[in-house]
Amino acid sequence: LRGRSSAADARFVGRLAAKYQADFDIGSADVRAIAEKRKISIETAAREARYAFFAETARRRNCRTIFVAHHADDLVETFLINLFRGAGNAGLSAMREISTRRIDGIDLTIARPFLCVWRKEIDDYVGEHRLRFREDATNKNLTPLRNRIRHRIVPYLEKTVGRSIRQNIWRTAIIAADEEKWIDSELPDSKHADLSVVKLRALPIALQRRALLKWLRKQNVSDIGFDAIERVRSLADRDARIAKVNLPGNRHARRRAGKIFLE
Amino acid sequence: LRGRSSAADARFVGRLAAKYQADFDIGSADVRAIAEKRKISIETAAREARYAFFAETARRRNCRTIFVAHHADDLVETFLINLFRGAGNAGLSAMREISTRRIDGIDLTIARPFLCVWRKEIDDYVGEHRLRFREDATNKNLTPLRNRIRHRIVPYLEKTVGRSIRQNIWRTAIIAADEEKWIDSELPDSKHADLSVVKLRALPIALQRRALLKWLRKQNVSDIGFDAIERVRSLADRDARIAKVNLPGNRHARRRAGKIFLE
Repeated sequence: LRGRSSAADARFVGRLAAKYQADFDIGSADVRAIAEKRKISIETAAREARYAFFAETARRRNCRTIFVAHHADDLVETFLINLFRGAGNAGLSAMREISTRRIDGIDLTIARPFLCVWRKEIDDYVGEHRLRFREDATNKNLTPLRNRIRHRIVPYLEKTVGRSIRQNIWRTAIIAADEEKWIDSELPDSKHADLSVVKLRALPIALQRRALLKWLRKQNVSDIGFDAIERVRSLADRDARIAKVNLPGNRHARRRAGKIFLE
Repeated sequence: LRGRSSAADARFVGRLAAKYQADFDIGSADVRAIAEKRKISIETAAREARYAFFAETARRRNCRTIFVAHHADDLVETFLINLFRGAGNAGLSAMREISTRRIDGIDLTIARPFLCVWRKEIDDYVGEHRLRFREDATNKNLTPLRNRIRHRIVPYLEKTVGRSIRQNIWRTAIIAADEEKWIDSELPDSKHADLSVVKLRALPIALQRRALLKWLRKQNVSDIGFDAIERVRSLADRDARIAKVNLPGNRHARRRAGKIFLE
């Protein structure tokens, strides 16, 4: 996707792996085609292609833990993206130090050891140890919301509100993650392909939303926002007139015989 | 506090009450002196003086429900203030349509019927019905964080991210409030003046924080931030070396004989 710069990135990582005698796997995907076919955003398609590659590699190499390099600034940016998109609390805590994800029948553990390290600390380390590195060429493009948040909004907030703003948002995101972990443990199991309308209705509203989010994620529905959750939740209404609602990625939720299920 | 402009505000409301044949009570307080004496911010002192007046009036008039005029923009601003101060999730949902508060021995119900109405809709209504009104003279002062958020940050976010940003933050705040309501119902009762260390330790971290917040609020500790909660939580540590921590408003939490209590 990034063309020549992307190929140079790959060569750089390949040489680095050789130097450290580490195994090296590389994959590519036509992200634009996936996005069009599945009716999802380019960003979501890229993320899904990435995780499909992780799952495939994990299976082939017989390992189950993926380490990704998200750092504290990534966490803050993700928090703000989710907030600005109205994801609701569950979405606010999307990144955790340890999380699990089932992809193509493989249970992967995702570890993010740098989540409490700031980008600046990494830059300082890189400078101190004179490490060679490459900057992702797409980072400077202000079209993606993440880059506008990184280069415009966070600096503006620091100037207008104060230096500690990133630390404070980071802390809120960490608390949200701790709470989500606990709330998840309180939720009914979501391994079934369908949901009982009666059981869903018995939960408090806040838990209905969380239960639907957990279930939709388990069914691999992408880009689940508040609207999607509320649409599915409306299927459980006692006097619901609609029995089918649309979901991202050209999928549908349907209610029949006291059950909600996906198509 | 606002001097001449404040006196004119009061006269205006008095005339309005007379016109609608409504009872009218007025109170004043030396907020600066309260803030200095209790070592709290001017904003907090003003809020406490306001609620003390509400409680006193409620007792005298024998009514228990207070209607306040916070609107949707206030909710969004409060959410951002709490986020930028690192209040954690519980703080994010500070405003609810209906909440209760015990002040000076009186249980007050606080109703906010305008929480889902935008300032612009109120302005439109006022214009349409040619209602007379007064603007709070302190609104234009950019020193308080709230006013910088209102006049600078929200417009900047709308320009940089998109028009729907306020609606999306509003939605997140409402979800947070629904979740807080449910989490509150899951918490142990906080009516006791002390907390059992053993019981606190038995809760998941997320609930420990929520339980402490609920308890500190019940004990009328003001400006409870994440730091204050974590300090009190540290008293419950199995190998805690400190038995006393500072809280806002010149108060202290202490641990003795397996209990945490305030001084």
